[in-house]
Amino acid sequence: MRAFTDERDWAKFHDPKSLILALVGEVGELAELFQWLPGDEAVQRAGVDPLRRRVGEEMADVLAYLVRLADVLDIDLAEVTKRKLESSAVRFPAADFHGEAPEKA
Amino acid sequence: MRAFTDERDWAKFHDPKSLILALVGEVGELAELFQWLPGDEAVQRAGVDPLRRRVGEEMADVLAYLVRLADVLDIDLAEVTKRKLESSAVRFPAADFHGEAPEKA
Amino acid sequence: MRAFTDERDWAKFHDPKSLILALVGEVGELAELFQWLPGDEAVQRAGVDPLRRRVGEEMADVLAYLVRLADVLDIDLAEVTKRKLESSAVRFPAADFHGEAPEKA
Amino acid sequence: MRAFTDERDWAKFHDPKSLILALVGEVGELAELFQWLPGDEAVQRAGVDPLRRRVGEEMADVLAYLVRLADVLDIDLAEVTKRKLESSAVRFPAADFHGEAPEKA
Repeated sequence: MRAFTDERDWAKFHDPKSLILALVGEVGELAELFQWLPGDEAVQRAGVDPLRRRVGEEMADVLAYLVRLADVLDIDLAEVTKRKLESSAVRFPAADFHGEAPEKA
Repeated sequence: MRAFTDERDWAKFHDPKSLILALVGEVGELAELFQWLPGDEAVQRAGVDPLRRRVGEEMADVLAYLVRLADVLDIDLAEVTKRKLESSAVRFPAADFHGEAPEKA
Repeated sequence: MRAFTDERDWAKFHDPKSLILALVGEVGELAELFQWLPGDEAVQRAGVDPLRRRVGEEMADVLAYLVRLADVLDIDLAEVTKRKLESSAVRFPAADFHGEAPEKA
Repeated sequence: MRAFTDERDWAKFHDPKSLILALVGEVGELAELFQWLPGDEAVQRAGVDPLRRRVGEEMADVLAYLVRLADVLDIDLAEVTKRKLESSAVRFPAADFHGEAPEKA
C-alpha cells in the first residue's frame, strides 16, 4: 500500500480522518453484499461466484485501508492485534463466557 | 481468532451478517477517536498515549473481526488483498493518476 | 441541533468529514446493540427495556448528526428524501420487484 | 417507506440486522463522496452540483433506512431524538463545555 500510494503521489490524501472515511466506504460496500441475504444462508451464498469474488474484493479493500492507516500512524498492526487478543482472552475467561455472548465482545 | 472463538463456543454467533455488524461497531469506535481532531493534527495527536494505545486497540478489533469473517467464509484474505492491489495498480496507472485522487479509489 | 451546537461554540468542530465520522460512531453503537442477537428475535428483544431505550437513543444520535450535517450543507433533508423515495418508486416498479430484493435497493 | 416497502412485498427483508447493514451501506456511500476532499473545502465543494445532488441522495438513503428501522421497531424517532437532545443539553452544560469538544459527544 505504501509503494502503491507513493507511486501515485497520493500520500497527501491519506490523513487519518480521510483514511477512516475510505475504510467506512469499503465496509459499506461489504455490508451491501450481505444486507438482504437470509442470515442462515449467507455463508453458502457467499461461497459461490460471482458473490464470493466480490466479497473477497471488498474485504481486501477494507484491509488495504486499515494497513495504510497503520502505516501512516506508525502502528504495528500485527503486534497490537496479537496483544489485544491476549488481553481479550483474559477479559473473557472461557469458563465464564462459554456459549454466552458478552454484551459487547 | 478461531481458537479464541472455539474455546468460548462463540462460533454460533459468527454468521457473516453478525460479524459485519461487529466490524461496523469497531470501525465506529475507531471513528469516534478521531472525529473532533483537527485533520492536520491527527497523526501527531494519535502518536501520543493514551490515544495512541486506544487507536491501536480499535484497529486491532477491526482486524480481528475481518480475519474471523475471512475464516468463516474460507477466504484467504492475504491472497485476495495482494491480487486486489495488483488489479488496482492496473486500473489506476501511476502516470494517469499522479497526484489526482480518483473519484473513488 | 443548531441551537445546541451554537450554545456550546461547537460549530468549529462540525465540518462535513468530522460530522460523518461522528455519524459512523453512532451507527457503530447501534450495530453493537444488535450484533449477537438472533436475526429472527431482534424485533422482540429490542422491544423490551433496557434494550429498547438504548436502541432509541442510538438511533436519535444518528438522526441528530444527520440533521446537523444537512444544516451545515444547507440541504433540505425532508425534501430530498421525499424526492429520492419518488425516484426509487420509479426505478423499482412494484410489479417488477414484487418480493424480490434488488441487488442493492 | 412503509408504503413503498409493502407495495413491493419487501417487509420480509427488513429485520433490524438487515436494515442496519443497509444503513451502513448508505453511510459508506456518503463517506466516499467526502473521503478525499480537503476538510476545509468540503462545505464549498459539496455546495455545487453534481456533488451537491449526490450528497443529498445519499443522506436521503440514510434517513430512509433509519426511518424504516424505527417503523419496524415501533420507535417514535422524532420523539426520542427530542428527548435525547434534551438529555445531552443537561449532560454537557454550555458553560462547562464552551468551545471544548467532549471526548465523545
